Amino acid sequence: MSLIFLDNNATTAPLPEVVDAMAHSLRNCWGNPSSNSNSGDEARKGLFAAREHIARLLKVEPECIIFTSGGTEANNLAFRLALRSAPVSRKRVILSGTEHASILELQQSLEEQGYQVAVVEAYPSGRIQLEKFRELADQSTALVSVQWVNNETGIIQPIEQIREICANRGICFHSDVSQAVGKIPFTTNLPVADFTSLTAHKFHGPKGIGAVTLPGPPSARLAASSLFYGGQQESGIRPGTENLACIVGFGEAARIREHRLSDAVIHMANLRDQFERGLLQRHPEIQINGDPENRICNTSNLRFPGISGEALVNALDLCGIECSQSSACTTARPEPSHVLTSMGLTEDQAYSSVRFSFSVMNTMDEVERALELVDKNYMKILNPTLSFAS
Amino acid sequence: MSLIFLDNNATTAPLPEVVDAMAHSLRNCWGNPSSNSNSGDEARKGLFAAREHIARLLKVEPECIIFTSGGTEANNLAFRLALRSAPVSRKRVILSGTEHASILELQQSLEEQGYQVAVVEAYPSGRIQLEKFRELADQSTALVSVQWVNNETGIIQPIEQIREICANRGICFHSDVSQAVGKIPFTTNLPVADFTSLTAHKFHGPKGIGAVTLPGPPSARLAASSLFYGGQQESGIRPGTENLACIVGFGEAARIREHRLSDAVIHMANLRDQFERGLLQRHPEIQINGDPENRICNTSNLRFPGISGEALVNALDLCGIECSQSSACTTARPEPSHVLTSMGLTEDQAYSSVRFSFSVMNTMDEVERALELVDKNYMKILNPTLSFAS
Repeated sequence: MSLIFLDNNATTAPLPEVVDAMAHSLRNCWGNPSSNSNSGDEARKGLFAAREHIARLLKVEPECIIFTSGGTEANNLAFRLALRSAPVSRKRVILSGTEHASILELQQSLEEQGYQVAVVEAYPSGRIQLEKFRELADQSTALVSVQWVNNETGIIQPIEQIREICANRGICFHSDVSQAVGKIPFTTNLPVADFTSLTAHKFHGPKGIGAVTLPGPPSARLAASSLFYGGQQESGIRPGTENLACIVGFGEAARIREHRLSDAVIHMANLRDQFERGLLQRHPEIQINGDPENRICNTSNLRFPGISGEALVNALDLCGIECSQSSACTTARPEPSHVLTSMGLTEDQAYSSVRFSFSVMNTMDEVERALELVDKNYMKILNPTLSFAS
Repeated sequence: MSLIFLDNNATTAPLPEVVDAMAHSLRNCWGNPSSNSNSGDEARKGLFAAREHIARLLKVEPECIIFTSGGTEANNLAFRLALRSAPVSRKRVILSGTEHASILELQQSLEEQGYQVAVVEAYPSGRIQLEKFRELADQSTALVSVQWVNNETGIIQPIEQIREICANRGICFHSDVSQAVGKIPFTTNLPVADFTSLTAHKFHGPKGIGAVTLPGPPSARLAASSLFYGGQQESGIRPGTENLACIVGFGEAARIREHRLSDAVIHMANLRDQFERGLLQRHPEIQINGDPENRICNTSNLRFPGISGEALVNALDLCGIECSQSSACTTARPEPSHVLTSMGLTEDQAYSSVRFSFSVMNTMDEVERALELVDKNYMKILNPTLSFAS
């Protein structure tokens, strides 16, 4: 039984080219980038090239990229840097209620630092309640953090409007773009946000490497608000010997995706749309969570009335199909998805939902097979007494 | 010209087995360890096995290991955890003056948090001034941090005595064991310190992965003092999707070293001793920095009277021999080594010093070749008008 992996918002398989680049780096370019030596020079070249590739995908200057150990650290670091950039008199932080755990978990720590945290929930469309947001985002607001794309629903937030509101009111804007990278084109003219954070393993890079983008070149002021202390790596903003192999893998994943972005988006959209069409034709009672018109190309968050989403996820896992109920960073917890409840779903509705997320590595054959198995298992859970031919 | 790498305290080449294990993990075991699925299970098994290998090398329980992105993060995290474990009334922190930058750079932040930081310098032997330390380590002391082995000189600190003093006075003891791992056997009976920190790339694992060891199983109290916030990975003490490939590489490096520890130590000591003997026979004026009797097997920190160590390092680099003046994390700075000045060396003496550090991958042939080239270049720098046959 070969695996059909439809949980690509949790993680993705590293591309073969990424693994090859990492293995090559580990074998031939393992010097310490901080060493003034031949091997150090080679290592720095590897770092430099990777940064260039990532910068090209994100449409930022290479010097504005600070590498971290992943998305969680990137979100935490971005908050530190952004708050350091804001006037000290501003004490409000606004988060969207659908943010990733690594953002929402910051609330307590922010409050301990004297910030007042306001959480703006989402409409049933999955988009942030913009009127509420506009009201809250006043001159006392230091920082706004709204992800570009939600990891559970794939809903795209109106970041142009959010950015404009923030810019007009002198508010620092951070956006977690982890789920957007490689699925929405970034534009050169207008940066997504003042600070963004991302991670490589959502688009076929390795786990354990991520980045923060800065609004401009690194400064000593920013270095003074690093999460931890040590050497002068990453302009002092993120000390510690660089994870060269993972950075090289990150760069290779970015290089390939930048090269094939339109094809990748079309391919993922075709897979997702075919899957949804097929399933909704058979079961018109299945609902799409969030506004289908405002979604990223690869994500399908579906509500299966009358069943537990967990039961379906587990049954599919036994058939070799992987999907999930919510973020992998929160699956260990028994609560219903905070993203879906923020959108106004009831707990029951949240519990009956399942996320399918596609990648460039999935095929139409996999979609057809998945359709059969989702259909069969959904019916089996609805009617446990029915018997089905395997 | 093939590289002779004698800068193994800065970093080491990943073993071929390590690279293979990482590539295999990236290709076949790339699931998200936080996912409740087949691929998540496989990933967790990989994590579990690596943790076991590392625990066996460090002689601690696997559950006491918390993975980080490297030694710098590990040192920072260990301090947070250790200070959380100490009574709040204790406000003194004692550091040795020969600690790594990622420890010494914590001083300002500790002072901002209300701690009074005392730095105990070293004797010319390289060992901490124990009498001074004994005086300072009183009932007001929360934390003591003394590395087991110094990265620049290889000097082994009297950690048994330090540990005893700390234990008797209820002081939390942290030790950075990065340079000791795989070069000194750890014992089961007595942990090195309450908290230790280490990194994989000092013994042929990959860069970008390290660990903190805890004095006991992870607790909610410790999780509340993590460096950043997010999911429940690493018992909540270190959130963020695990760097599975690097952890697997770390585990493989530990497994191999644990298996061959005695041979590795003997091999490195033979290389280092042959190198020093050869060089000191030709140039009796060359001095070993620190007490040769209290050194790790692989490190030779030598003072070349009358020349700039930097000039020798650069000349050797051009000949394909890599060595260094101080820690890679501090080479970007123009100051003399803080480790050597802490031991009482003058600035001139510090500037005239060079560190050679050997690994299991070096050979006796490399030592012979290095001897020739160090000799030749040293004389050339001393007498620039002399000409030498290449």
